[in-house]
Amino acid sequence: MSKKPILLGVLGGLGPMSTFYFCQLLTSHTHAQSDADHIDMIISSRATTPDRTAFILGHSKCDPLPIMIEEAHRLTAAGADLLVIPCNTAHYFYEGLQRACSIPIVNIIEETVKALHAAGIRRFGLLATEGTARSGAYARISASFGMECLLPTQAEQEILSTIIYDEVKQNRTPDPARLEAVASALLARGCERLVLGCTELSLLKPHLQKQEDYLDALEVLALRTILACQKTPIGFSDPLLRSGKEDFV
Amino acid sequence: MSKKPILLGVLGGLGPMSTFYFCQLLTSHTHAQSDADHIDMIISSRATTPDRTAFILGHSKCDPLPIMIEEAHRLTAAGADLLVIPCNTAHYFYEGLQRACSIPIVNIIEETVKALHAAGIRRFGLLATEGTARSGAYARISASFGMECLLPTQAEQEILSTIIYDEVKQNRTPDPARLEAVASALLARGCERLVLGCTELSLLKPHLQKQEDYLDALEVLALRTILACQKTPIGFSDPLLRSGKEDFV
Repeated sequence: MSKKPILLGVLGGLGPMSTFYFCQLLTSHTHAQSDADHIDMIISSRATTPDRTAFILGHSKCDPLPIMIEEAHRLTAAGADLLVIPCNTAHYFYEGLQRACSIPIVNIIEETVKALHAAGIRRFGLLATEGTARSGAYARISASFGMECLLPTQAEQEILSTIIYDEVKQNRTPDPARLEAVASALLARGCERLVLGCTELSLLKPHLQKQEDYLDALEVLALRTILACQKTPIGFSDPLLRSGKEDFV
Repeated sequence: MSKKPILLGVLGGLGPMSTFYFCQLLTSHTHAQSDADHIDMIISSRATTPDRTAFILGHSKCDPLPIMIEEAHRLTAAGADLLVIPCNTAHYFYEGLQRACSIPIVNIIEETVKALHAAGIRRFGLLATEGTARSGAYARISASFGMECLLPTQAEQEILSTIIYDEVKQNRTPDPARLEAVASALLARGCERLVLGCTELSLLKPHLQKQEDYLDALEVLALRTILACQKTPIGFSDPLLRSGKEDFV
C-alpha cells in the first residue's frame, strides 16, 4: 500500500435499509478484484435518531440535529476523512451539520442538481418526503442553476408519504404503480426527469418501469462518493451518471 | 425511550458485500414500525484488512489480526456494547480477538453448530473457504457437541474457492449449479444438512434450489444478533431458526 487509503464515514440509519442499500451500491459499483480494492468505511446507523420529517413539519419537537452532530463526531473521532449522508431529508440540517463538523460532507441534493444541470435539464419533478419537499432545498439549489423543481400536489405527496412511511420503512413492499402514477402526472406537467429524492424511494427503483424517466439521487451520491474515495466507478446504467471524474468538486 | 438502546458493533469488510447483506438481513428480520425500532449500529468495513485465508494457509505473511483488533477497539471506543463479525473465516482469529476486546463477540461458528445440534443433526457438510475448512474451527466445535463436520474433497474445495474469490468477491455472479454439485456430493456422503459457512456463499442462497438442504451461518448470526439486541425477529423461513429467545446464550 503506497499511501493510507481514504476512510469514508457514512452517517446512516435515516433509515437503516437505505443506508445498507447505499453501501451495497458503493460496493457493486466499485471496480474491484479483491476485497482490498473496496472503500474503507465506518458507518454509523443510528436508527433511533428522531424523525426528520416530523421535526421539519413541526409535528415533533425532537430535533434530530444534535444526534446527527454526535454521530458525525463519532465518525470523525473514528478517523473518517469524508462524510456522506444517504438520506435526502436529513440534508435540511446540512448547513448546521457541516458547520459543526471538521471534515467535508458530500451534499446529495447539490450533486443531484448538478448532474441534472450537466445533462441540460431545465425542469424536473421531485419525488421525496414531505419534509424534503417543504424544506425547499431542491428548489433553492435548482434555482441557483436556473432550473425549476416541480413539487407534487398535496394529494400526490400523500401517496408518496404513505409509500415511504407506512410501507418501505415498515419492511413492506409497495405497489410501484402508485409511485408511477405520481411520476406520470409530473411528466404531464412538463418535467423532463423525476428525481428519486428519498432513499426509501431509491429502494423501489429496480421495480419501476421506464427507468429512463428517473434520476436516483442515491446513485448520484454513490458515484460521487466512489470518485471522492479515488476508486474507479463501474456499471452505472443511467447515462446522466457517465460523466467522468473531471466534474467532481 | 426508557433506557439507552444497545449499540451493536459490526466488524465488517471481510468482505464488504457480505457485511452489507448481513446488515440488510438484520434490518429486514427485525420487527419495526418505524426507523427507531431498528438496531442502532456502528459498522467498520475495513476492506483493506489483509486476506484471512491467504494468511491461514501460509500463502501470505500479512497477519490480519492486528488490523481486526484495531477495528474492534475503534468500535468499542465508539460505544459498541457487543460485537459481531459477519465472516466465518475471520473466526480463525476469534480467541485472539476476544482476548484483546473488552466487549463480548458473538461467535458465528458456535451459534451455527448450536442451531444444528438443537435440530438433532449428527453430520453436516461444510461449504466454506479453504481457510475455514483447514482451520478446523467447525470440526472442533462440532466434536464438542458429538457431531461430525464433513469437508469437501480437495477438488470440490477448489470449486468453492473459485466461486468465493474469483467470482463473488469480484462482483461477478456465479452459476449456482456448481455449488449445488458440491452440495449433492456431500449429501450423498451422509450429510443431513450443508452449512453455508462463508458469507460470500450466503449471498448465493436466494439462487439455490432445495433451500431446505442448507443452513446459512449468516442467517443464524442475524437471528442471534437481533435477540441479543433485545429486538423481535421476524420472517426467518428456515425451521432451524424458529427456536425462541430461550436458548440464546
